[in-house]
Amino acid sequence: MSAISIIGTGNMARTIGARAVAGGNTVEIMGRDRAKAADVAQALGGGTTTGEWGTAPAGDIVIMALLYDGVVPVVARYGDALAGKVVIDISNPFNATFDGLDHREETSIAQRAATVAPQSTSLVKAFNTVFRQVLEKGRPDIFLAGDDAQAKKDVAVFVESLGLRPLDVGGLKMAHWLEGAGVVTVGLANHGVGNLDFSLSITELPASATT
Amino acid sequence: MSAISIIGTGNMARTIGARAVAGGNTVEIMGRDRAKAADVAQALGGGTTTGEWGTAPAGDIVIMALLYDGVVPVVARYGDALAGKVVIDISNPFNATFDGLDHREETSIAQRAATVAPQSTSLVKAFNTVFRQVLEKGRPDIFLAGDDAQAKKDVAVFVESLGLRPLDVGGLKMAHWLEGAGVVTVGLANHGVGNLDFSLSITELPASATT
Repeated sequence: MSAISIIGTGNMARTIGARAVAGGNTVEIMGRDRAKAADVAQALGGGTTTGEWGTAPAGDIVIMALLYDGVVPVVARYGDALAGKVVIDISNPFNATFDGLDHREETSIAQRAATVAPQSTSLVKAFNTVFRQVLEKGRPDIFLAGDDAQAKKDVAVFVESLGLRPLDVGGLKMAHWLEGAGVVTVGLANHGVGNLDFSLSITELPASATT
Repeated sequence: MSAISIIGTGNMARTIGARAVAGGNTVEIMGRDRAKAADVAQALGGGTTTGEWGTAPAGDIVIMALLYDGVVPVVARYGDALAGKVVIDISNPFNATFDGLDHREETSIAQRAATVAPQSTSLVKAFNTVFRQVLEKGRPDIFLAGDDAQAKKDVAVFVESLGLRPLDVGGLKMAHWLEGAGVVTVGLANHGVGNLDFSLSITELPASATT
């Protein structure tokens, strides 16, 4: 069981929150609008609490369930309140045509957030390749990138509590390529698949075929 | 059935060639070393022929089974011999630490090859997210990127002849993000999976879960 704080009150906050409660985790919702946060907390049930915007989250893992352009400012706004926390960035900084990223440099929202967070805060990129409806109804693989091995272990335990498979792709630098995998996922939705009812995953060779 | 020319005589040439022959396609092997090409052709069987390096390939689809830094020079070297052909770039331009691309700009080997190919040549990025051993023994999904819809259809027919699922991710610009998906695949091999016996794929929601 993990103690989770979710910053944000939108669809992803509700969806991750619902799975987190179902997985037996302690959940706190933090919203700029405290009444909205209270509504989400009530909808989630399971003893979900609310916290005051900008103050120290109750959870050891803090999920930024915000639009991508809100993540870096909100991490900066929380500042020292995030000291010692594991912060998960789930965002997709898509460009206007959804075939690339809003930043052209080889960076990511997670890396940029790390530069404004306290040194003792560990950023992990996760959940960004998953459409909300698949996270709600399916069993998608969850790709993780981060520099802190313990933080990734903590996130992996949380992901497993949701009944999902965590898959470590490497250091925080890989967050850029996970954001790229988000671009590929949207490309598939718009071209080769034509809907949102799928997720990027890995398929293992049948044991009979392995060497 | 498609007519395929494979430029290259290495492991990927053999592996794709073997699947192509098994799928009932006509296969030609072109190597700088004609004797090596003849060896590969003989090993593949099924009437596989060889062609002279730098001359017009017999196939309608030409697969560049080369290390990434060979692709652009070889496309340039073939030049007009590739007019009207569909050229598949399968390469992964990894950096030295395998956590990024050798080019830092938002481009790809496929896009760079397109700039040196005849105007009537259609570049398609495909097969780059698949480890050789999985292509040999498994049923990996094959992600495609390209600007020419007919060329992508031709490649999709070929991919289906191999018993594999083609998945269109969008225009040739998306080749950059498929190269990034190659980086993610190697990241998984080195971290979250720990071996090469898997492939990046898509998993559909069970029908009961779709809206």
